[in-house]
Amino acid sequence: VPSRSFVALVPSLALIAGAAWADEGMWTFDNFPRELVRERYGVTIDDAWLENVRLATVRISGCTGSFVSPNGLILTNHHCVSSCLAQGSTRERSLIDSGFVARGRETELDCATQIADVLEKLENVTAKVQEATRGLPERDANERRRQTLTQLEQACESASQTSGNPLKCEAVTLYNGGQYWLYQYHRYDDVRLVFAPEDDIAAFGGDPDNFQYPRWCLDFSLLRAYENGRPAATPRHLTIDFEGPSAGEAVFVPGHPGSTDRELTVAELRALRDRSFPPALLRASELRGRYLQFAKTGEDARRIVQDALFSLENSLKVQRKQLDALLDDAQLTEKREAEADLRARVNRKRALAAEIGDPWRKIEDALAVEAARFLPYQYLEGGAGFNSRLYRYARTLVRAAAERPKPNAERLREYTDGFLPRMEQQLAAPVPIYSELERLTLSFSLERMREWLGPDAPIVQRLLTAETPDEIAARLIDGSGLADPAVRMALWNGGQAAIDASTDPLIALARSLDAEARELRKWHEDNVEAVIEAAHEQIARARFEILGTSVYPDATFTLRLNFGSVQGWIENGTPVEPFTHLDRLFERETGQPPFRVPAIWQQAKPALDLETPFNLSTNSDIVGGNSGSPLVAADGRLVGLLFDGNIHSISGAYWFDDAKNRAVAVHPAIIREALTKVYKVEPLIEELGLAN
Amino acid sequence: VPSRSFVALVPSLALIAGAAWADEGMWTFDNFPRELVRERYGVTIDDAWLENVRLATVRISGCTGSFVSPNGLILTNHHCVSSCLAQGSTRERSLIDSGFVARGRETELDCATQIADVLEKLENVTAKVQEATRGLPERDANERRRQTLTQLEQACESASQTSGNPLKCEAVTLYNGGQYWLYQYHRYDDVRLVFAPEDDIAAFGGDPDNFQYPRWCLDFSLLRAYENGRPAATPRHLTIDFEGPSAGEAVFVPGHPGSTDRELTVAELRALRDRSFPPALLRASELRGRYLQFAKTGEDARRIVQDALFSLENSLKVQRKQLDALLDDAQLTEKREAEADLRARVNRKRALAAEIGDPWRKIEDALAVEAARFLPYQYLEGGAGFNSRLYRYARTLVRAAAERPKPNAERLREYTDGFLPRMEQQLAAPVPIYSELERLTLSFSLERMREWLGPDAPIVQRLLTAETPDEIAARLIDGSGLADPAVRMALWNGGQAAIDASTDPLIALARSLDAEARELRKWHEDNVEAVIEAAHEQIARARFEILGTSVYPDATFTLRLNFGSVQGWIENGTPVEPFTHLDRLFERETGQPPFRVPAIWQQAKPALDLETPFNLSTNSDIVGGNSGSPLVAADGRLVGLLFDGNIHSISGAYWFDDAKNRAVAVHPAIIREALTKVYKVEPLIEELGLAN
Repeated sequence: VPSRSFVALVPSLALIAGAAWADEGMWTFDNFPRELVRERYGVTIDDAWLENVRLATVRISGCTGSFVSPNGLILTNHHCVSSCLAQGSTRERSLIDSGFVARGRETELDCATQIADVLEKLENVTAKVQEATRGLPERDANERRRQTLTQLEQACESASQTSGNPLKCEAVTLYNGGQYWLYQYHRYDDVRLVFAPEDDIAAFGGDPDNFQYPRWCLDFSLLRAYENGRPAATPRHLTIDFEGPSAGEAVFVPGHPGSTDRELTVAELRALRDRSFPPALLRASELRGRYLQFAKTGEDARRIVQDALFSLENSLKVQRKQLDALLDDAQLTEKREAEADLRARVNRKRALAAEIGDPWRKIEDALAVEAARFLPYQYLEGGAGFNSRLYRYARTLVRAAAERPKPNAERLREYTDGFLPRMEQQLAAPVPIYSELERLTLSFSLERMREWLGPDAPIVQRLLTAETPDEIAARLIDGSGLADPAVRMALWNGGQAAIDASTDPLIALARSLDAEARELRKWHEDNVEAVIEAAHEQIARARFEILGTSVYPDATFTLRLNFGSVQGWIENGTPVEPFTHLDRLFERETGQPPFRVPAIWQQAKPALDLETPFNLSTNSDIVGGNSGSPLVAADGRLVGLLFDGNIHSISGAYWFDDAKNRAVAVHPAIIREALTKVYKVEPLIEELGLAN
Repeated sequence: VPSRSFVALVPSLALIAGAAWADEGMWTFDNFPRELVRERYGVTIDDAWLENVRLATVRISGCTGSFVSPNGLILTNHHCVSSCLAQGSTRERSLIDSGFVARGRETELDCATQIADVLEKLENVTAKVQEATRGLPERDANERRRQTLTQLEQACESASQTSGNPLKCEAVTLYNGGQYWLYQYHRYDDVRLVFAPEDDIAAFGGDPDNFQYPRWCLDFSLLRAYENGRPAATPRHLTIDFEGPSAGEAVFVPGHPGSTDRELTVAELRALRDRSFPPALLRASELRGRYLQFAKTGEDARRIVQDALFSLENSLKVQRKQLDALLDDAQLTEKREAEADLRARVNRKRALAAEIGDPWRKIEDALAVEAARFLPYQYLEGGAGFNSRLYRYARTLVRAAAERPKPNAERLREYTDGFLPRMEQQLAAPVPIYSELERLTLSFSLERMREWLGPDAPIVQRLLTAETPDEIAARLIDGSGLADPAVRMALWNGGQAAIDASTDPLIALARSLDAEARELRKWHEDNVEAVIEAAHEQIARARFEILGTSVYPDATFTLRLNFGSVQGWIENGTPVEPFTHLDRLFERETGQPPFRVPAIWQQAKPALDLETPFNLSTNSDIVGGNSGSPLVAADGRLVGLLFDGNIHSISGAYWFDDAKNRAVAVHPAIIREALTKVYKVEPLIEELGLAN
């Protein structure tokens, strides 16, 4: 049932100039629309509330989580720890299948590539960046901007170390260049897995149900942040209210939405629609077919590929619905009209028009320039042509050896000092790598490179004349030692001399491709990115001047907060209720994947309350990266765990449809039911205050 | 080098009202623009020329061919006989790999599902059809039109039998309902394979080179039509001129272009772009991945899947470039403007406007109606959900049993008397069916049906609750006897009683789906097709009245003739030459598929003239179905064998781009070189007049 209070408020809201009409927006913490929330929901969000929520929210790889105990316990999604589960698995045994339960702290499982970041401070450095680039031509400005951001990060980290509270400092670009910030994080780099249920219940319904609702997914897991070998002290944490929220109740979702494209120009949206999505979707679909067919060759194969398959199917569904959204001419027309309106308004302000020129046209021109080398750029530099984890190690090592000796500000951005510890952590992590899967993905991507660049492209002639894609993939993967972390670390520590001396075939390949790939990247940065970034800075200026500052920036995988309420929606005239319940899970199961309920749940069934709420929906404006976000009530209680959106939420990449875009969360009551009656993990029951 | 004569003539042509600007058009033989051709190329095409070419041209399954000897010898493409080669292959041995050479007539290989049709007569029946449907509401008109066409066919066949020259009579709809014709064919249903080279040279470059140019494909084969167990007498045939054409020479391509969409409204093009192509491309790409991965499991698997893989990759490339074409907003805008112009002109003619109303809007509305049940229709009736040859047999048998007892004009169109002999031929043909491939395609399509219709769709609930897609596919395929032609013929001959009594699991499945599938079809016919067909009849009327009759109809896999000349084009500022030569084949080969030259060619190399022309390009306006068409010179000589288009030719589905759309043909000189110096097939050398 849609919230009545929201419906009733619309007329008065329409009178507030510049206000968003819907419960829309991925707001930064410094610019949260408290007044709007107070008017709409009668809720007061104060500084203390914001600070507490900010410090209890963590960023993990690609996801969000929140502290839910004073001892570093982090609540997040099952699907956010799938790479940790895959890393703890072998050919013979899959933790994704079996789940994982640490019955004491000593058995908590090291997640070797996981980190957890808490945003401690934010500093607006827009003026500094704009000052550094003022008056420079686009290419130089682009270069100088990168250098300035690197220098600001470096100075920030040094200062924090001196102060005795070392922080990770990351430059953040908001409003596509309208603002620059330094976000400063407390980083935990020792993160361990405490609990994860079986995939069969965590992702009940699998790919068919993904992005669907109603839903029955126990998509939660628990991690723990450690410091100095001990559970981290986390006094700022959220308390789970296992009763959950009521229908219509206001909820707030802090988290790290990954990426949206709501500020893109129409030309950029069309380039996505016409140039980017179709080939990406074709590649993803074919790879899905290869994975699925490979998985049928045996149980080992199924286990080996399951994590990669899950990620691929998820992104495939996202991309296909994003393309659907862009093919909606009515929506695109609305964008076009809004853009034409803004341009007309700019033209009426002579001084502004004279200063910014026509940045929309500049973007359109830069995209036309990009077309000429789009495919080589994608295949050689963008990763479409060399899809292999081992090859990615090789390229990282080859580039790091060349970049690290340079002055920090002169390196490629991802090799500046701020990023190196994380890179080293990932290189050193002892993660399983399966050569048959490596060969599959590498052969596939080489074959598609030949198709899309054409058999006469120089790179294709060089690589695929004497050998077929399968042959070269087998030779490179089977001949490489890079699956061994010790080999990787020797090359990392050995620098350029070690790289030069290496006879590893993947290192040799990465060496041989590097000059051409760098040239493509430089060309792209100078002729496309530099122009587009400068143009977006100008558009952002125009937007601030004309629309004011009560707007939110596109998502950038940095901390945001939104507001909304628990509600369903109307689908083809039929209301979709906001809550699902446990009874329907058992009715819906078939005994066959992906609709199979684990045996432990079957056994526990007699003891379970079948009316327990399971999942719920809200109109929160979220996107990938918000996975694992807590749903926070007005009084600060944690009342849900976000894990997905409905199918309409995917168009949220470009616009927010308040009528149909819904977020989907795990209800806390089913977490309580699981921990107390199914898995019976005593220490966790204790730690979460569930003991009777 | 583009033809100079064409460039020079453009200004004067622009003055001819209503004339096509380019060498454009898939013209019917009754309306060939002789005057235009005379002016442009100085060539006179008379009735005798047209008759001779028409009677020498044959239609085979999905392709074209031409008689090239008085003894029924048919020249066509290698890729047009691939299903015959696949049918003659086994798990252990592939005729696609090895090629096939009949060194005498007694060893010519039966192509069990092949036919060859020669168009003997054409009769315009537009007035009869329009009379029958006049004044009826759309649904009734649609029904009556179908019945009328069936009755006309039936009467035509009876009359031809009475006259002693039995013909196949097929109703043909041209101009999307602007004209109706009866095309009357002499049919050869005993067609045998005489010669086919190895796939490595016939399809040199494989999928990467498909639709590319320059090219080196020996994509030819020879069939022979038989009558009464003897080679057919074919006095009307073309004589091959093994010297081929000169650059700039006028060439004419008779053949059976399959399908174009140049007359579709903008709303229909957008429905293709937004609704049809994306899911079809995703399915095809995934299936490609499954096929490719399956082929890696062994040499048997590779052989089993090769023919299906070739077809799939070919259609995938076509569809992806068709989508690219529709994503070209500039082209779509041109279509939109032309449509707006036509609508405005209609509105200025009051009587016409009053009579036809707004058919464009009606089409748009019908497409909106279609959206609601598009996916169920595609999956249940359109074949997307049950991708299996055995299942298609089952459905044909189930439907035939229900339809054949009905009066001819009341049946589903494809079960009317005219189609039954061909259906019976296909059911009776002893073709190999590989259960592992059947399981793969059926499981795949069931899994996608679950994804796209959703796990809660009734059909999904019914089929995929107790079993996974793999399980149900294995049970159905392994339990079915339909791979045996005798089993199929028993069900065909046994009628409804045999179908009712059958316990074959695929027959049972087809029985259980039939009511729902028929309901969807009826709904689609009544609410979508009927409206759109009626609207297109009105648009055709408007076009004839406003634009005159010197226009050509969309392709319908019926006989057409175009005109053009031998020429290359300019690609990104660089001229592409119209001829390739043998020397470059050997330079381009890598020894690895798909760039491997067969051993027999390596051995023959010293004797070959390396300057022999290999392939050539022309600006002929062709499309799939023209494969195997002869290139006919002004004086009637056969100077080339069409087998492909360049990449730009694919947009020919929607518009003809004279600057870049090029057809690609095999040069006769390389056929002579192959037959005389490589394969040395004496009887063919003799029959084709190549003996010294």
